[in-house]
Amino acid sequence: MSTAKPRLRDLGITIGTMSPGELNAITDVPGVRVGQTTVIHGDGPLRVGEGPARTGVTAVHPHEGSVWAEQVPVAIEILNGAGEITGHANIDEFGMLASPVMITNTLSVGAVHQATVEWQVRMHPQIGPEEWSAPVVAETYDGFLNDTAGQHVTREHVWEALDSATSGPVREGNCGGGTGMLLFGFKGGTGTSSRIVEFDGQPYTVGVLVQGNFGGREQFMVDGVPVGREITDLQLERGASPGTVSDGSIIVVIATDLPLSDRQLSRLCRRGMLGLSRVGSVASNGSGDLLIAFTNHPDCRVPYPDEPTIITSPRLADGILTPAFQATVEATEEAVINAMVAAETMTGRDGNTAYALPHDRLVEAMRKYGRLH
Amino acid sequence: MSTAKPRLRDLGITIGTMSPGELNAITDVPGVRVGQTTVIHGDGPLRVGEGPARTGVTAVHPHEGSVWAEQVPVAIEILNGAGEITGHANIDEFGMLASPVMITNTLSVGAVHQATVEWQVRMHPQIGPEEWSAPVVAETYDGFLNDTAGQHVTREHVWEALDSATSGPVREGNCGGGTGMLLFGFKGGTGTSSRIVEFDGQPYTVGVLVQGNFGGREQFMVDGVPVGREITDLQLERGASPGTVSDGSIIVVIATDLPLSDRQLSRLCRRGMLGLSRVGSVASNGSGDLLIAFTNHPDCRVPYPDEPTIITSPRLADGILTPAFQATVEATEEAVINAMVAAETMTGRDGNTAYALPHDRLVEAMRKYGRLH
Amino acid sequence: MSTAKPRLRDLGITIGTMSPGELNAITDVPGVRVGQTTVIHGDGPLRVGEGPARTGVTAVHPHEGSVWAEQVPVAIEILNGAGEITGHANIDEFGMLASPVMITNTLSVGAVHQATVEWQVRMHPQIGPEEWSAPVVAETYDGFLNDTAGQHVTREHVWEALDSATSGPVREGNCGGGTGMLLFGFKGGTGTSSRIVEFDGQPYTVGVLVQGNFGGREQFMVDGVPVGREITDLQLERGASPGTVSDGSIIVVIATDLPLSDRQLSRLCRRGMLGLSRVGSVASNGSGDLLIAFTNHPDCRVPYPDEPTIITSPRLADGILTPAFQATVEATEEAVINAMVAAETMTGRDGNTAYALPHDRLVEAMRKYGRLH
Amino acid sequence: MSTAKPRLRDLGITIGTMSPGELNAITDVPGVRVGQTTVIHGDGPLRVGEGPARTGVTAVHPHEGSVWAEQVPVAIEILNGAGEITGHANIDEFGMLASPVMITNTLSVGAVHQATVEWQVRMHPQIGPEEWSAPVVAETYDGFLNDTAGQHVTREHVWEALDSATSGPVREGNCGGGTGMLLFGFKGGTGTSSRIVEFDGQPYTVGVLVQGNFGGREQFMVDGVPVGREITDLQLERGASPGTVSDGSIIVVIATDLPLSDRQLSRLCRRGMLGLSRVGSVASNGSGDLLIAFTNHPDCRVPYPDEPTIITSPRLADGILTPAFQATVEATEEAVINAMVAAETMTGRDGNTAYALPHDRLVEAMRKYGRLH
Repeated sequence: MSTAKPRLRDLGITIGTMSPGELNAITDVPGVRVGQTTVIHGDGPLRVGEGPARTGVTAVHPHEGSVWAEQVPVAIEILNGAGEITGHANIDEFGMLASPVMITNTLSVGAVHQATVEWQVRMHPQIGPEEWSAPVVAETYDGFLNDTAGQHVTREHVWEALDSATSGPVREGNCGGGTGMLLFGFKGGTGTSSRIVEFDGQPYTVGVLVQGNFGGREQFMVDGVPVGREITDLQLERGASPGTVSDGSIIVVIATDLPLSDRQLSRLCRRGMLGLSRVGSVASNGSGDLLIAFTNHPDCRVPYPDEPTIITSPRLADGILTPAFQATVEATEEAVINAMVAAETMTGRDGNTAYALPHDRLVEAMRKYGRLH
Repeated sequence: MSTAKPRLRDLGITIGTMSPGELNAITDVPGVRVGQTTVIHGDGPLRVGEGPARTGVTAVHPHEGSVWAEQVPVAIEILNGAGEITGHANIDEFGMLASPVMITNTLSVGAVHQATVEWQVRMHPQIGPEEWSAPVVAETYDGFLNDTAGQHVTREHVWEALDSATSGPVREGNCGGGTGMLLFGFKGGTGTSSRIVEFDGQPYTVGVLVQGNFGGREQFMVDGVPVGREITDLQLERGASPGTVSDGSIIVVIATDLPLSDRQLSRLCRRGMLGLSRVGSVASNGSGDLLIAFTNHPDCRVPYPDEPTIITSPRLADGILTPAFQATVEATEEAVINAMVAAETMTGRDGNTAYALPHDRLVEAMRKYGRLH
Repeated sequence: MSTAKPRLRDLGITIGTMSPGELNAITDVPGVRVGQTTVIHGDGPLRVGEGPARTGVTAVHPHEGSVWAEQVPVAIEILNGAGEITGHANIDEFGMLASPVMITNTLSVGAVHQATVEWQVRMHPQIGPEEWSAPVVAETYDGFLNDTAGQHVTREHVWEALDSATSGPVREGNCGGGTGMLLFGFKGGTGTSSRIVEFDGQPYTVGVLVQGNFGGREQFMVDGVPVGREITDLQLERGASPGTVSDGSIIVVIATDLPLSDRQLSRLCRRGMLGLSRVGSVASNGSGDLLIAFTNHPDCRVPYPDEPTIITSPRLADGILTPAFQATVEATEEAVINAMVAAETMTGRDGNTAYALPHDRLVEAMRKYGRLH
Repeated sequence: MSTAKPRLRDLGITIGTMSPGELNAITDVPGVRVGQTTVIHGDGPLRVGEGPARTGVTAVHPHEGSVWAEQVPVAIEILNGAGEITGHANIDEFGMLASPVMITNTLSVGAVHQATVEWQVRMHPQIGPEEWSAPVVAETYDGFLNDTAGQHVTREHVWEALDSATSGPVREGNCGGGTGMLLFGFKGGTGTSSRIVEFDGQPYTVGVLVQGNFGGREQFMVDGVPVGREITDLQLERGASPGTVSDGSIIVVIATDLPLSDRQLSRLCRRGMLGLSRVGSVASNGSGDLLIAFTNHPDCRVPYPDEPTIITSPRLADGILTPAFQATVEATEEAVINAMVAAETMTGRDGNTAYALPHDRLVEAMRKYGRLH
């Protein structure tokens, strides 16, 4: 693993009944690549444009190559729309993904959008004179810790995330777009998990990556245990500036290599919602709870712009999909908790501080409720 | 209470942190009326058209009067669409409910639709020559116990449910449209619950009624406790006829007296989905998980056909809605479990049997996982 | 042709630039079968339950066999939702059509729904004990001429429409579900048209059948000519009972043998909306403008219940679909006008009368605006 | 008027039957302000980043003040989703508009998004540390004439459009975001129109502004007359670079001062689609046909962030909305043609040329088909 830090399962805690993939990460789906740029600098009072910066950007490539040139089925679903995901109309119309999935902070959507377009133009010079692009950029809000209005995510950060993306273990916690995020009043961030599902004797993977930034402490649950009601201290600490903390948001990226249609992928997205409920989400008013799912199954990909006249794509019969639904629920739930287990205490702008979820007290709560012995 | 049977809270088990209304029922919302006709007759082998019948129909009136003549804001949302709810296009277009909400078995939708129209025509003779109606009829599938194809729900049953509807306690379990339903491999049926929410010092109610018929045993949870993995016996028993049990479904009716817009009611529906997740739903492939929410707040009602030129309706600011979301999650979760706690073991067509959830073993499981002492 | 009556093209008027199929009907799509039962009896004052009856039911079978056992891709889209189409949730979830498309009057939806279920149960006895059905029943309002509340469409009428359905010419005007309908203040009803589209040198067909019942006279256009402003007499005549005429509605059934996905079929539906605009629709408030599209391309069909584990269906590349869009616009426009050209003057309940569009004056208007010489 | 150029009505051609407002522009809606920055420089071969530039940005402020601080009801609807409009999820969830509506070229969405955020932060410094923003940025594609990949729209251009916006006449044709656009193979661009509707004796306005860039020549219609089939020369001319022209797109901004809910505004959007059909749109595959509608009726506005606990907004009864639908259809149709009448022949990158619609030949075609004498 890219990190020696324990993950949820290293603490002896499992979620659900299905088996994770080898890395227990979205990158268990063969070909999926993740790149993250973490932007941390400065301390002390907020000076817009100067810092402190506690932010970043995450890029998810659906496969080994350029997804603009080899597009994949995709769907977006919204549990609560207090957020942004660009490229939505295009995805609803065609059901195909033609850009990497980018995740950043709320006010850097424009910068990341422009830089992603420029990165695509560099690879595909026909974008502009003959072709177009509507990249997918999603966001959650890191203004408690970060100088969000300061536009600290630059073209170079975006290109670095895109260019450095790899398969293999995925760094979790305070990194990439998740750097400055919060979860249930603890430090949140980037998390991932996966599940194996079998059809016709063939193993496939459902992998989830979240940028998690939502929830009130009291709601926090792990495998049904009300952990948030057991750990009531270690709340967010305001530094110099008084104020309230907004509701937060979560972006859920669901990847699979199952042969699925875009319609079926929207079904997976709705199961991601159910996974959010399991950790305690009530989708509070200001939370942008946005889900995107794609499959990179080789026979579901469509070359572009030279697509064949007739496209023949396989899909699993809907009648046998329930295990894939269960996998999505479980992997979403675990990805959120993995983000919290990996995240470390962070002090950001104006001395605002978010504490890490203490592993020992998590374990203690699980013991108290009969889940660990 | 209309029944001496214990409910979930009588067993010492509570769901969530908010307080239920006086009856812990959808009828805690002032004016809401529920009527149920239960149709049970015959035993032994299935003879289509003869029986055995284990079915019925449930009517929910949004307020004291005729909802056609005094319409209320409403929204429908679909978690998984393997089901039927009529009146959908009309509700999406206008956001107003103009019929009682009817729930029955899958193949009786047509009969209940026609009988509901006839009942409305009886009250409002202009329906037909000058006006129209698109009643709301939803369904779940009771074919494991009932002669579903036999059309045992008649005009008289429908009119009886409509005419006998009252406020006050709501019968739960094997009654009304829920008569022949299953939940997590136990006997399911009709259940209800409510929560009180306060805004500006005023108490309001969110009430939920479900017709529950979904879920695999292993998924069943109560307040986060994996009860379904603790009680693995008492599975559905096939009698004379072999075969599989279909996925089932759930209809969730959410009523409130909060001042809300139809758009905000669709937000409540989506929180009902999160409540379903808490009892273990993964929204399996064949489950029709359909949610409908209305408010009967007096100032949100619109008289028909003599509606005013300009309608001025109050709504709560979205920014303060989160407690209403939490209330919906909790009441939905509890309504499903209430249905199971109330339901009694039933043998139906071909000797097929569904067992009641045993209260003692439920309590035992909750103790094992630290929820009861 | 099944009728010696002239159609729009027989008057020398063509719509658009693409060629119709041999019959210029939805049945140009090989395998599509249409059945219509027309219910006309009685005269004079309205006596609810007695008559006069001016109504009926139309059945569209997507192919030669049972669509429950061999399902086809389908989509529904709503231009204005003041109407009913059942089976909507199921179609949105799975994108597959499992029942014939039934069209009738507004208050007979329940009766037709029940009769369709019973007809399906007769053919497939597993519906009930093991399987379910959510038939598609749509409606428009014929209360100006018909005793709509009187429930004059019976099980026998429905079964007759279903059993007598054939390929070949389709009767238009005052027949089937369209019997008592109005269009632009003239007599309306059932109409049909088709267009041929070529892909890869192969001809395919887009066929449309409408049950048309909408529009104000002033809005009526034919190929861009404001015919409704040229023929201002021959308005609806009220007999004994005063009152206003409601907005009406239109059901548009789009059939094709193109290889398309359900997502692409929803794109066709939206082009049907554009076709309605061309005849003058502004989708007035009370109009239920509902569109359903299916393909019966052999390789897009899925057998049920024994569907294969992996379904491999062809679809045209979206990039080449525009001619199919144009075809849908044109065929929808022409189907509405065909309904009017075929419809004959009708007197119904209370002596209410709707006049036929006079062919000579239509021709005269087209001449005046330079479309005919 | 801000321009001496004739508009469609100056040529004696009227669309529909309703009266336009004084300016026949979106700014007839009191308070609506439009700002446009036009970016034209360079000639000759395309050098990405250098030019030639034929582009710009358009800003529509819903009222006199900051829409972030005083939000208005809004809805977005999609006829064909091959385009981008940001802020969509947020608008669907809350039905409120919190940013000006920005329109630019396809690949400048990111730059305009970022600049709009920065402009909002300048006015409302709480955006960032305490609050967020999800601005609305839409686009159409100008790559036939413009160096789209060259990112010629800068922060300064965006701020200029935002800061210079005024009520009063709106410049049409080759200006703002519409600078480099095409319509039906002629030069397209920005166009506007309006209609007056009366309710309860009060006049209200429906105003439309389009950034038009779609359509094949043969489809072009004016008031039902097939003008595109009458003027078959003056086609797009390719200069140095061969290639095809993509399908284009259209953004339709509908403004009104009618008291309407967000749900009702989505109904207006769908009527905008019907208006597009009237000029000949079949919503071709690659066309991003996106519609957004808002009302700035004073009693429909909601202050932010200090919104009242209970919001009481007026809306017209749906039953009387049809004239507002008709107004939307007519104003959309006329706005598109106004864009063409105002646009002038333009030569852009690589010498590519789009010709203006010749006024005399338009008039001639209208005469031929009996619309002008």
